[in-house]
Amino acid sequence: MNFGSDNMGPVAPEIMEAIAAANQGTAAAYGADEITSRLDARFSELFETPTRVFPVVTGGAANSIALATLSPPWGSVFCHPESHVNVDECGGPEFYSGGAKLITVAGDDAKLAPEALAAQLKAAWIGVVHSVQPAAVSITQSTECGAVHTPDEVAAIGEVAKEYGLGFHMDGARFANALAHLRCTPAEITWRAGVDILSFGATKGGALAAEAIVVFGDGPTKDLCREIEYRRKRGGHLLSKMRYCSAQLEAYIAGGLWLRLADHANAMAKRLSDGLAALPGTTLAHPTQANEVFITLPERLILALQKDGFGFHRWGDRKTSSTVRLVTSFDTAAEAVDALIAAAKKYLDTSRS
Amino acid sequence: MNFGSDNMGPVAPEIMEAIAAANQGTAAAYGADEITSRLDARFSELFETPTRVFPVVTGGAANSIALATLSPPWGSVFCHPESHVNVDECGGPEFYSGGAKLITVAGDDAKLAPEALAAQLKAAWIGVVHSVQPAAVSITQSTECGAVHTPDEVAAIGEVAKEYGLGFHMDGARFANALAHLRCTPAEITWRAGVDILSFGATKGGALAAEAIVVFGDGPTKDLCREIEYRRKRGGHLLSKMRYCSAQLEAYIAGGLWLRLADHANAMAKRLSDGLAALPGTTLAHPTQANEVFITLPERLILALQKDGFGFHRWGDRKTSSTVRLVTSFDTAAEAVDALIAAAKKYLDTSRS
Amino acid sequence: MNFGSDNMGPVAPEIMEAIAAANQGTAAAYGADEITSRLDARFSELFETPTRVFPVVTGGAANSIALATLSPPWGSVFCHPESHVNVDECGGPEFYSGGAKLITVAGDDAKLAPEALAAQLKAAWIGVVHSVQPAAVSITQSTECGAVHTPDEVAAIGEVAKEYGLGFHMDGARFANALAHLRCTPAEITWRAGVDILSFGATKGGALAAEAIVVFGDGPTKDLCREIEYRRKRGGHLLSKMRYCSAQLEAYIAGGLWLRLADHANAMAKRLSDGLAALPGTTLAHPTQANEVFITLPERLILALQKDGFGFHRWGDRKTSSTVRLVTSFDTAAEAVDALIAAAKKYLDTSRS
Amino acid sequence: MNFGSDNMGPVAPEIMEAIAAANQGTAAAYGADEITSRLDARFSELFETPTRVFPVVTGGAANSIALATLSPPWGSVFCHPESHVNVDECGGPEFYSGGAKLITVAGDDAKLAPEALAAQLKAAWIGVVHSVQPAAVSITQSTECGAVHTPDEVAAIGEVAKEYGLGFHMDGARFANALAHLRCTPAEITWRAGVDILSFGATKGGALAAEAIVVFGDGPTKDLCREIEYRRKRGGHLLSKMRYCSAQLEAYIAGGLWLRLADHANAMAKRLSDGLAALPGTTLAHPTQANEVFITLPERLILALQKDGFGFHRWGDRKTSSTVRLVTSFDTAAEAVDALIAAAKKYLDTSRS
Repeated sequence: MNFGSDNMGPVAPEIMEAIAAANQGTAAAYGADEITSRLDARFSELFETPTRVFPVVTGGAANSIALATLSPPWGSVFCHPESHVNVDECGGPEFYSGGAKLITVAGDDAKLAPEALAAQLKAAWIGVVHSVQPAAVSITQSTECGAVHTPDEVAAIGEVAKEYGLGFHMDGARFANALAHLRCTPAEITWRAGVDILSFGATKGGALAAEAIVVFGDGPTKDLCREIEYRRKRGGHLLSKMRYCSAQLEAYIAGGLWLRLADHANAMAKRLSDGLAALPGTTLAHPTQANEVFITLPERLILALQKDGFGFHRWGDRKTSSTVRLVTSFDTAAEAVDALIAAAKKYLDTSRS
Repeated sequence: MNFGSDNMGPVAPEIMEAIAAANQGTAAAYGADEITSRLDARFSELFETPTRVFPVVTGGAANSIALATLSPPWGSVFCHPESHVNVDECGGPEFYSGGAKLITVAGDDAKLAPEALAAQLKAAWIGVVHSVQPAAVSITQSTECGAVHTPDEVAAIGEVAKEYGLGFHMDGARFANALAHLRCTPAEITWRAGVDILSFGATKGGALAAEAIVVFGDGPTKDLCREIEYRRKRGGHLLSKMRYCSAQLEAYIAGGLWLRLADHANAMAKRLSDGLAALPGTTLAHPTQANEVFITLPERLILALQKDGFGFHRWGDRKTSSTVRLVTSFDTAAEAVDALIAAAKKYLDTSRS
Repeated sequence: MNFGSDNMGPVAPEIMEAIAAANQGTAAAYGADEITSRLDARFSELFETPTRVFPVVTGGAANSIALATLSPPWGSVFCHPESHVNVDECGGPEFYSGGAKLITVAGDDAKLAPEALAAQLKAAWIGVVHSVQPAAVSITQSTECGAVHTPDEVAAIGEVAKEYGLGFHMDGARFANALAHLRCTPAEITWRAGVDILSFGATKGGALAAEAIVVFGDGPTKDLCREIEYRRKRGGHLLSKMRYCSAQLEAYIAGGLWLRLADHANAMAKRLSDGLAALPGTTLAHPTQANEVFITLPERLILALQKDGFGFHRWGDRKTSSTVRLVTSFDTAAEAVDALIAAAKKYLDTSRS
Repeated sequence: MNFGSDNMGPVAPEIMEAIAAANQGTAAAYGADEITSRLDARFSELFETPTRVFPVVTGGAANSIALATLSPPWGSVFCHPESHVNVDECGGPEFYSGGAKLITVAGDDAKLAPEALAAQLKAAWIGVVHSVQPAAVSITQSTECGAVHTPDEVAAIGEVAKEYGLGFHMDGARFANALAHLRCTPAEITWRAGVDILSFGATKGGALAAEAIVVFGDGPTKDLCREIEYRRKRGGHLLSKMRYCSAQLEAYIAGGLWLRLADHANAMAKRLSDGLAALPGTTLAHPTQANEVFITLPERLILALQKDGFGFHRWGDRKTSSTVRLVTSFDTAAEAVDALIAAAKKYLDTSRS
């Protein structure tokens, strides 16, 4: 029973079927196929605005290409210290941008605080050649701590970005989980709140390997699209048999599948969170809003659960931290959740007596 | 009936089955899964030497990461003017290496001539700080003109590389087709001939999206592997659900599937080549040794075939060239080949009378 | 009367003479001249160890080339948040290294605290491909706050660097001022304390435009030298008429000139620091150990001094900070220092009454 | 008597005086000084159009920053195979641009042939994502073979550049020598002929270390200037004591000094060229239009002259070529020229008898 990561999960049956269905005869290569050609329209409908879609196979690629497009080599990108772009991509954004600088902005639950961002921008040496120049801001939705930005929270950051002329990027590796939590429209937490480019994740949500760089609007952002095409190709991310990637994206959003999958994952996380938080000696480290639970547990409980074969990671210091992360997925069974809670309860009962 | 590219083909049934078979429950992410863990052993057996395998999804990624690992930013990479790394990757090798310089070396049939390479190296300003420094040589097997380097030809280049201390890279996007033509062992045209890193292609051969950076030997090349891991991750090419890529590679080489698929593609190319070359007014531009036919046709024949719905590209100048490229694939039907030949014959008969 | 920066000062007469003396007939270009050829021996003597010297014209070039040599593109460089490499070079180290990441480590007086460094390294994901890998540590001597690392303090950092296999770089834009304060040998605060590469500054000390990348030892560091040569050339920093830059460096260290110039600058800073600190309502922000004074002044005093024509900068927030930086130089007159103190005293006396 | 390179020469007295004159008290750093502030006006007058000037210390820096500004990382820069940017800067343009590709275009006397350029551009895959995209063209004036582009020749290239929307860069390391030969205005061979950015050289002409990135016009090129500022700083090329570099540039162009210096160098080259070409068994390899002579000599004459202590380089293959390059400078004495001719004559007379 593995709560290590939603990356460890399988591929949803509907998406496997779409891949199989795409496997018919020849098709134009490099994204000129029919399925890929439909994606712009599909996403434009979903986001209620003209939208361009560039499929890639990893979130790291989507994020790095997006940020390189929003920042010159001498630019700075504002992000949370715990953000994936800052700590989990081995410097991918720096590589793709030609050496842009990521500058961290604090905030609770891995959300970037708009006031802190505004304060740092106010103090930045804008126009001073000795300093990198503020170019973009990047937030994660849902965050690396399992929290979700409300539309107002996104918009507040968007306003600061707009005031300083920054590009606004959203890392949406778990975008579906945020949306399932918020019950709002995709538009409300993206372009309507000022987001220019979204890294739209599907892999963690149930795809095989499919993410999309999603560019909103038909105004100035249109100019970014040409750049994205060259950056994607040059980075080795233009798939020859693109149809199989595009088919995943199409199936993922078709008929609300993505939100149903995310709903289940979120529900399982809530069930797990509630069950563990009710136990003595445990403390939730962050609110459980998406499909991740961050909870501080007694050290001996951590060891006992690991011994029982439950998979999960300590968070922060990966060797010594007493806060653990438990991630649920579209295919997490309620039984698995209950088994973990029961095991924890049993251990705590036993050790107390 | 499409002879445009082997990139346009579908996925071989055996490989689709392997993907489906991999879709069972959770598995460790980022290549720590069981299937990926087996690949080193599988390829070591195939190549008869200790071999490390790094799966990626495009040949561009494999080539760029390999060359960046073999060349410092101030290095030069010797390659054929028509090589994929030189003209078809939008500067990917330059990007990944931090600005290394590709220097072209002429040769027939897109093979790099070892004497020309030696002459250019002799004249190079080795150790002179004003000049980029020779670092690597890259060849394509089979070549962009559908020709195949013999083991002796590879070894001759390998000897020059060794003499000058260059890394030796082989772009094997159509490696299987070369091997099917040569009927030799994989070892004979790679590490035994001096190759350090092979971009092992499977996508064109029948996979969905699977290539591998293959590093040979357990000597100095071992040191390259750590670098490849970081470059791959940083480039956004470390797949979270790696198992689905690795499963393709495993199935591709299992039980000789890859060679059977390549055999068929090669046979269809030969059938097409022989059929067209026998017609009046046609001239083969290159020998047909793999799965590509390059043939000069009367302009009106080109137009007639296109009108009949046969898909293929003009080669060289994409608008005006009278030499066309016809590519066969693992699933090219003999009937399709015969239909094209018949159509050509019919047109020529008609136009002559 | 300008206390804005030691960058604003003129060139010391002895150095101007050396430039003039170098202006005799032809000389080999690109550093093959006699003066440049002598520098290795001169610096080896000065540092009491085999030393290689690479002249460049800016500290930014010296720092960026040094750090790029010590860190791969996927590496991290640990430095103080206020360090010049982090905030004053517009991302130069990121550019030269191909996207390495600067990670900040806190510490008083812009000194990097060795315990904090050790703690961050202990928590770093060493060997984990998702994270940049610790590659180097960089400190500034004297620091951006006018403080000086003692030999023991440098050595403590050097030990942590050694334990984790990091390269150790020292930004010595004001190296002479540190040495003049410490009255120790150059060796004691560099290679004997673990420093691998020193950016040896002369421009701020009285040269026209002359800095040197100084590499110590004849062991493994020797391998770095070849790399530095190519990086310097490629960066456009290999001067054709190198002799004029080398002549500055030679004259600067000849007969202890550099330390005499630094002694004077330090003495003037002390005089200024003591004078201002004795006034009511002022507080030294950092100890005055080199040629910079950081002092918090009443807002109206700042405005009054600026109105009187004294040149200096607010520190931190350049518009609102009440802490100012006053920099002295080899040619700062005692009269200028006394005039500023007198003006401040007069203003405070007046405003109080 | 050294004809090795104009890089080996000293600094012209007028320029040394300007440096000394700049050495008065404090001055604003990083180019905010009075001398630097005057440069835009001085060059605007010289070039008869609004002109922005960015001083740097090497031609390599000027060229690399200019080309990086004109080409995106996925762009291509068209230049002559023998151009300095292609062979003498250790990949500097590739480094600064983030991996742009230099594509060579043939032409006599190291001039880029406009028809060849047009043909290559016509065949280029413009808008095709697999290929780097044509972004700039760079020519050298005077060329690496000592030839000079006429205004019409420059304009012909400028027209092709304009037709394809390419930026047009001129490497003017020996710009003065070209102008002295042509007796036209600086405007006629630069912006009036379509040049966007000029690397204006002074070092080879008699300065200590002073080049300038010169941007013409107040239209779209103005946008490039902001980018140049950040690229220059980031590259470590923003001098703190800028006044000493700017003073060289100011003195160089003041009162026509630069053209007088170039006139002398050109005259000495002509004298040398005529003298040697008149001897039996010698053949000029290129017309002598600037300050360089390329002449094919009998092997034994080369050895004899070298034995006599005359300094010069073989051209092409640096060890075996029988064509030598002889460079004159602003301080080349007629006696030195005559001595070389006489020595050659004497040797040939002797060896014949």
